[in-house]
Amino acid sequence: MSENTATPLLDTVSTPDDLRRLKPDQLRQLANELRTETIATVGQTGGHLGSGLGVVELTVAIHYVFDTPRDRLIWDVGHQAYPHKILTGRRDRIRTLRQSGGLSGFTKRTESEYDPFGTAHSSTSISAALGFALANKIKGAPGRGIAVIGDGAMSAGMAYEAMNNAQAAGNRLIVILNDNDMSIAPPVGGLSAYLARLVSSGKFLGMRELARRFASKLPRPLQVAAKKTDEFARGMAMGGTLFEELGFYYVGPLDGHDLESLVPVLENVRDAAKGPILIHVVTQKGKGYAPAEEAADKYHGVQKFNVVTGEQSKAPAGPPSYTSVFARALVAEAEVDPTICAITAAMPSGTGLDKFEKAFPERSFDVGIAEQHAVTFAAGLAAEGMRPFCAIYSTFLQRAFDQVVHDVAIQNLPVRFAIDRAGLVGADGATHAGSFDVTYLATLPNMVVMAAADEAELVHMTHTAARYDDGPIAFRYPRGNGTGVALPEVPQRLEIGKGRMVRGSDGVDKPAGKVALLSLGTRLGEALKAADALEAKGLPTSVADLRFAKPLDTDLIRRLMLSHEVVVTIEEGSIGGLGAHVLTMASDEGLTDTGLKIRTMRLPDVFQDQDKPEAQYDTAGLNAPQIVDTVLAALRHNSHGVSEARA
Amino acid sequence: MSENTATPLLDTVSTPDDLRRLKPDQLRQLANELRTETIATVGQTGGHLGSGLGVVELTVAIHYVFDTPRDRLIWDVGHQAYPHKILTGRRDRIRTLRQSGGLSGFTKRTESEYDPFGTAHSSTSISAALGFALANKIKGAPGRGIAVIGDGAMSAGMAYEAMNNAQAAGNRLIVILNDNDMSIAPPVGGLSAYLARLVSSGKFLGMRELARRFASKLPRPLQVAAKKTDEFARGMAMGGTLFEELGFYYVGPLDGHDLESLVPVLENVRDAAKGPILIHVVTQKGKGYAPAEEAADKYHGVQKFNVVTGEQSKAPAGPPSYTSVFARALVAEAEVDPTICAITAAMPSGTGLDKFEKAFPERSFDVGIAEQHAVTFAAGLAAEGMRPFCAIYSTFLQRAFDQVVHDVAIQNLPVRFAIDRAGLVGADGATHAGSFDVTYLATLPNMVVMAAADEAELVHMTHTAARYDDGPIAFRYPRGNGTGVALPEVPQRLEIGKGRMVRGSDGVDKPAGKVALLSLGTRLGEALKAADALEAKGLPTSVADLRFAKPLDTDLIRRLMLSHEVVVTIEEGSIGGLGAHVLTMASDEGLTDTGLKIRTMRLPDVFQDQDKPEAQYDTAGLNAPQIVDTVLAALRHNSHGVSEARA
Repeated sequence: MSENTATPLLDTVSTPDDLRRLKPDQLRQLANELRTETIATVGQTGGHLGSGLGVVELTVAIHYVFDTPRDRLIWDVGHQAYPHKILTGRRDRIRTLRQSGGLSGFTKRTESEYDPFGTAHSSTSISAALGFALANKIKGAPGRGIAVIGDGAMSAGMAYEAMNNAQAAGNRLIVILNDNDMSIAPPVGGLSAYLARLVSSGKFLGMRELARRFASKLPRPLQVAAKKTDEFARGMAMGGTLFEELGFYYVGPLDGHDLESLVPVLENVRDAAKGPILIHVVTQKGKGYAPAEEAADKYHGVQKFNVVTGEQSKAPAGPPSYTSVFARALVAEAEVDPTICAITAAMPSGTGLDKFEKAFPERSFDVGIAEQHAVTFAAGLAAEGMRPFCAIYSTFLQRAFDQVVHDVAIQNLPVRFAIDRAGLVGADGATHAGSFDVTYLATLPNMVVMAAADEAELVHMTHTAARYDDGPIAFRYPRGNGTGVALPEVPQRLEIGKGRMVRGSDGVDKPAGKVALLSLGTRLGEALKAADALEAKGLPTSVADLRFAKPLDTDLIRRLMLSHEVVVTIEEGSIGGLGAHVLTMASDEGLTDTGLKIRTMRLPDVFQDQDKPEAQYDTAGLNAPQIVDTVLAALRHNSHGVSEARA
Repeated sequence: MSENTATPLLDTVSTPDDLRRLKPDQLRQLANELRTETIATVGQTGGHLGSGLGVVELTVAIHYVFDTPRDRLIWDVGHQAYPHKILTGRRDRIRTLRQSGGLSGFTKRTESEYDPFGTAHSSTSISAALGFALANKIKGAPGRGIAVIGDGAMSAGMAYEAMNNAQAAGNRLIVILNDNDMSIAPPVGGLSAYLARLVSSGKFLGMRELARRFASKLPRPLQVAAKKTDEFARGMAMGGTLFEELGFYYVGPLDGHDLESLVPVLENVRDAAKGPILIHVVTQKGKGYAPAEEAADKYHGVQKFNVVTGEQSKAPAGPPSYTSVFARALVAEAEVDPTICAITAAMPSGTGLDKFEKAFPERSFDVGIAEQHAVTFAAGLAAEGMRPFCAIYSTFLQRAFDQVVHDVAIQNLPVRFAIDRAGLVGADGATHAGSFDVTYLATLPNMVVMAAADEAELVHMTHTAARYDDGPIAFRYPRGNGTGVALPEVPQRLEIGKGRMVRGSDGVDKPAGKVALLSLGTRLGEALKAADALEAKGLPTSVADLRFAKPLDTDLIRRLMLSHEVVVTIEEGSIGGLGAHVLTMASDEGLTDTGLKIRTMRLPDVFQDQDKPEAQYDTAGLNAPQIVDTVLAALRHNSHGVSEARA
């Protein structure tokens, strides 16, 4: 493959206004150059490639036909918006994608007026577009709401809820269904099968029919073309009763790479449709870049790669990822327990459950982007005696919070939640951070909440969850690689609500220390480093891995509080989690009355932008030097003046 | 109307096994008696009436045809399950419905093996039924999953997510769509319009056609009847492409009160269908009880009533409800601000927004049972410059937690959340309690969280939220009537993050007190009573209404901590809320180092069953005597021994 990176036409287009001055027959060249630039960019930065390549023509056509930014264009998920960013004034920063201080890998309101609504979690775009459309309707302003949403994202309930409410917007709402037969993993479910039937069995009308329907609207060259040939085989058909039944004016399926039909059809529906519009466009992920076309899943999210060969940079070899350790541990449990089953919401590879699926296909369920259903379905499985593991990223489990409360916790059903991507997540930024799960789960009665300090602990916790039938149990672990500790030959069943001393005094067997660090999760390594530094300063420091945020190991915590002067909690979560529970227990028992110095270290009260994870934790103040500083400041803090003022 | 309450046949039926011994021609009489008993019961207990009356025949038919409890029958929401409870061994306790220690107003696993899955929040039944069906498939056991779900509940995304996943269950999954054209309020949206078209335009096949299709399956008397008459006009038709497109075997619409067609059709699909089944049944809410038929919305949930006249007991006159105070306050704001709009998720009456709808129909949006969409739609409205109020019960806002995080808080959009039914809610029990909102909202960056101490405060908070454009803001208030305080002529704009002293020392202008009570929400009245009791014991007590859980009034809290010996927080919420935030702030600042006695009073770590609200708060330990006890225990608590042990 030869590399031609010249982009003479694209170089003249820095905003959609420039684009709209082009002639229709220049759009093909622009799209080609935009594709070249997208590939070159992601080759340097890494990121999402296939999705963006699939919508190059769509991006050009939408900005050409619609009045952006007055018309509000919302890219669902937003990981396909790199070409959009290049066309909307951000080409000069496009090579900062997903890096510290750089452009977001998704759309973001603070980044551009062409991003009217930030996205990242799937399936929000129709609801938001409807909000824009109806606000403008109320105000008597002209703006439309345009949502571009993939077929995978359509499986989520909130997309359906929004479609069910679309009528009120009339033709101010335009939904472009980008049907690439692939969200991250191959699609599942009835809707997907339905769309496949639409595309395969629908009559693709030729250009002649297109011309007949939209004769007056078609640009002259196309009218001529329509008379001359029927070769536009992948063109346009009417049909799509499911969407029509929900009140949409349906057009499609259309070839999403054919600008010569895409542009006039968009112009026509823009001007002619009477109600909310759904345009069904068929695209190919990775279009125009052979390595990505051939392996769409491998090129969904990529490392930096060589543009000519397609070869991706390898991440440096290291310990296994938490995800893979969990997956292997769960398969091992399922080998001896036929009731164990696994549920993922469209993340078989991200959660490692693709391994489980291969081993136990009949006990493996990928429900699509449908976290609410995933959790209540798991509750049903549990109620019938199965041992379900729901493997969902921390940030996506938020989608199913009510189902966790209402269907699992209230009924005390033993659903196991394997919560991947807990804590800060690096390049995906604030929208994907797993900051809140300990807070929103530990507040629930009946819930057991664990966090793994390393990958060996994760094996123990997977085993512990498998054997725990008394109610719901959750265990969280971070994105990325483990610490390199040896994995246990035989997993250990942890005692519920019991932590472990990692070093120093437990308040019973050894002389009392000065400082106790209570860690939950993978900050344990930083806590141990901090302990080294503190001991070097003559401060005997004990370190506990609490393992459980709920139930707390109240015996251990009490003993440590009674035998140390400073107690500091450390967690990869926001306020309301471990620290709050430890403080609450301490005040319940009157341990806070004693003059003991308790401090809680947690994520700061801000949404943190993308960065390398270690830099994010430094910004968050959760690395070893900051633990040391917290302890020293507490020791320096003089409460006597304060006490006197009070008396 | 004359009253005939004799139930000779029903008296012989205490379980579905008894029912299944009856002859088909006895079912009509049984249904009539079951209806009589249901009316008599709810006349005495109050509760949900119309929904149960609508499914009397369906209840009889399902238990007659299916093998309950081995076949798992799940009543969506569960408020229509009173006839089911009467038929499944609970008739002797049916008059304890919704009372302390009595039967739940919903289905509940701990109550009966015939309730395989607890319900109360809408739209969970298909997911759960799918769980049962697939668990049995894996185990090779015979049980089916049967979901009975209303047309209103079908508007929720999770019902769609579940339908999208139904294929795997095959004919083990049976969904009975109970189409009564009414959830609590009249239905909204595209699906509802579609169902109406199906029912009105569909050919209702006569008995002749029914007989032709199912000839061998029809019981002999029906075969005869089919030959004799075409009067079974509301019978059965095939159609329903939307469900078929999602992979269901669709049957309907059927007359849900016609046992002579219902029973054979259920028997037929039970035995013959190859894939998941959707049976579309049309019923009338309140069927067979004239007052309820005539005013279905008024008889959805009722007080005790006179069975003969239909007259409902009036609740004793009292102060206006919080709901109505909010509604009037919001209408007043909207009169002077054209950007204010209101969103409800199928609760126009419950949230008071029916008043807003009448005044400003173009700015009022009832999105159906679709909380996820409601919140992101509101975010879109806010992004386009509107001032949206999302009025959602605390327990239902859990459905939209991710949308609150991802679409509102991360983008810092000024969506206003009016959170009704905060705290304990009485007869609806644990599933409807609003226990967690302060915890799950106050952990989010950018979020402002208020709680009203009385209805005058609610007016101020509505006004404050209307004028606050800097980001998201939430205010919570309880179910039920206000305290009777005078409502303000002119609402006050509260300073964000500032509480108010209600009595005693604020640590600056008055001499220091002994005890400070920090209240958030309507426990303020109990805090004041407790203060009286404490002062009677010679303990000067200050009381603050903090108003804000986030941002905290750190100045006020610090001053109170420095000028009192005991500080107690009181809130109507679970761990992780106000108390946790106050403790965290105190430990951040080293105020916990001083020997100060801090205690947090909150909801206990259990799901509390139904009871009268005041009794629930007594159980929870949040009434005045318990506040007094907490203070006295703290004062008695001697930390010296403890401190010495530590040294």
